[in-house]
Amino acid sequence: MPAKGLKTKERILTGASQIFNRKGIASTSVNDLLQATQTTRGNLYFHFSGKQELALAVLEREQRLFMEFLDRALAEGTPGEALKRFLRWACLRHQRSRFVGGCLFGNTALEASDTNPAFSALVSQVFNDWTAKIEERVRQAQQTHEIRNDLPAANLATLIVATLEGGIMQARLTKSEAPLKNCLGTLQTLLQLPPNPSSGDK
Amino acid sequence: MPAKGLKTKERILTGASQIFNRKGIASTSVNDLLQATQTTRGNLYFHFSGKQELALAVLEREQRLFMEFLDRALAEGTPGEALKRFLRWACLRHQRSRFVGGCLFGNTALEASDTNPAFSALVSQVFNDWTAKIEERVRQAQQTHEIRNDLPAANLATLIVATLEGGIMQARLTKSEAPLKNCLGTLQTLLQLPPNPSSGDK
Repeated sequence: MPAKGLKTKERILTGASQIFNRKGIASTSVNDLLQATQTTRGNLYFHFSGKQELALAVLEREQRLFMEFLDRALAEGTPGEALKRFLRWACLRHQRSRFVGGCLFGNTALEASDTNPAFSALVSQVFNDWTAKIEERVRQAQQTHEIRNDLPAANLATLIVATLEGGIMQARLTKSEAPLKNCLGTLQTLLQLPPNPSSGDK
Repeated sequence: MPAKGLKTKERILTGASQIFNRKGIASTSVNDLLQATQTTRGNLYFHFSGKQELALAVLEREQRLFMEFLDRALAEGTPGEALKRFLRWACLRHQRSRFVGGCLFGNTALEASDTNPAFSALVSQVFNDWTAKIEERVRQAQQTHEIRNDLPAANLATLIVATLEGGIMQARLTKSEAPLKNCLGTLQTLLQLPPNPSSGDK
């Protein structure tokens, strides 16, 4: 595809991701998409056969970006430091968006679980891969005694992901960081993975 | 209103609640509503001016029913027993629906937070009242040494509600009770509120 076409496709994916996140996929109309992506109907249908194909492409792109984010967050330092960095960065991502939109995967899980098998299969894969990456670091942090080790790493990983999604839901509802920060701070104490006193790093 | 009219209105509210829960409010069409409520267009518009008014009436009714459920779950026994009963009953509610629909308030929180102020105000109220009722029992359970008391009751209550919502999300996505049971079991251990070994009661 020529560079101009690729640029248009990328602009459509970026704009569509934002409007899907804010309104939900099912509630987003083609007119909403044209406005959000600043494109013409002809260009939209040149690149995608319709909303279903576009939404799947958006979800696949966000899946790739989220896995890259996770790998970056979990890459450096001790396993305990990596887990703390992930929780801090997750909170920052939503602060930066001022709690508009929330988590596209959580939103789509609730929107599509009972209605769209293709979307829910992709979102299930995201949750599985996400939980597996957290579980790996939890297991390592248990070996380095940076996190409690009286419970299976898989159970703690599932709890971390669930608490984060529930905290994002409440932060988005109240448009305030308090419920999310509160949940993550409390969770870290319960996990015996206390936040750094000066967690000023990004 | 004559008894027949009240019965029709009740049938509309019950059917609408189920379809809203499964498909989301925005994605539910008037035709979906007619089918789900087994009513005529004339009857539907006799009782409600449109989908917005019907959805608000459904949310208000579900709010009342959920608060009654909470009060029943939290009513008897010691504060610690009351909290454990609530978590067990919450899990059972979703097992019985086979994880179709999930939590109407959680779904509506993610669907309406950025688009429908009337819905999100009502859902915020539900989360506030729910968290306050849990917080009250947590505080009492801290006094009776049935739950850890090194953290504020308000923080533990926020965490309990968030974990439940995140666990329901994952159970609904996988159509399996495992993530929800796993989250709640792990949470109870972390809260030092262990499940009863024989939790066979309803």
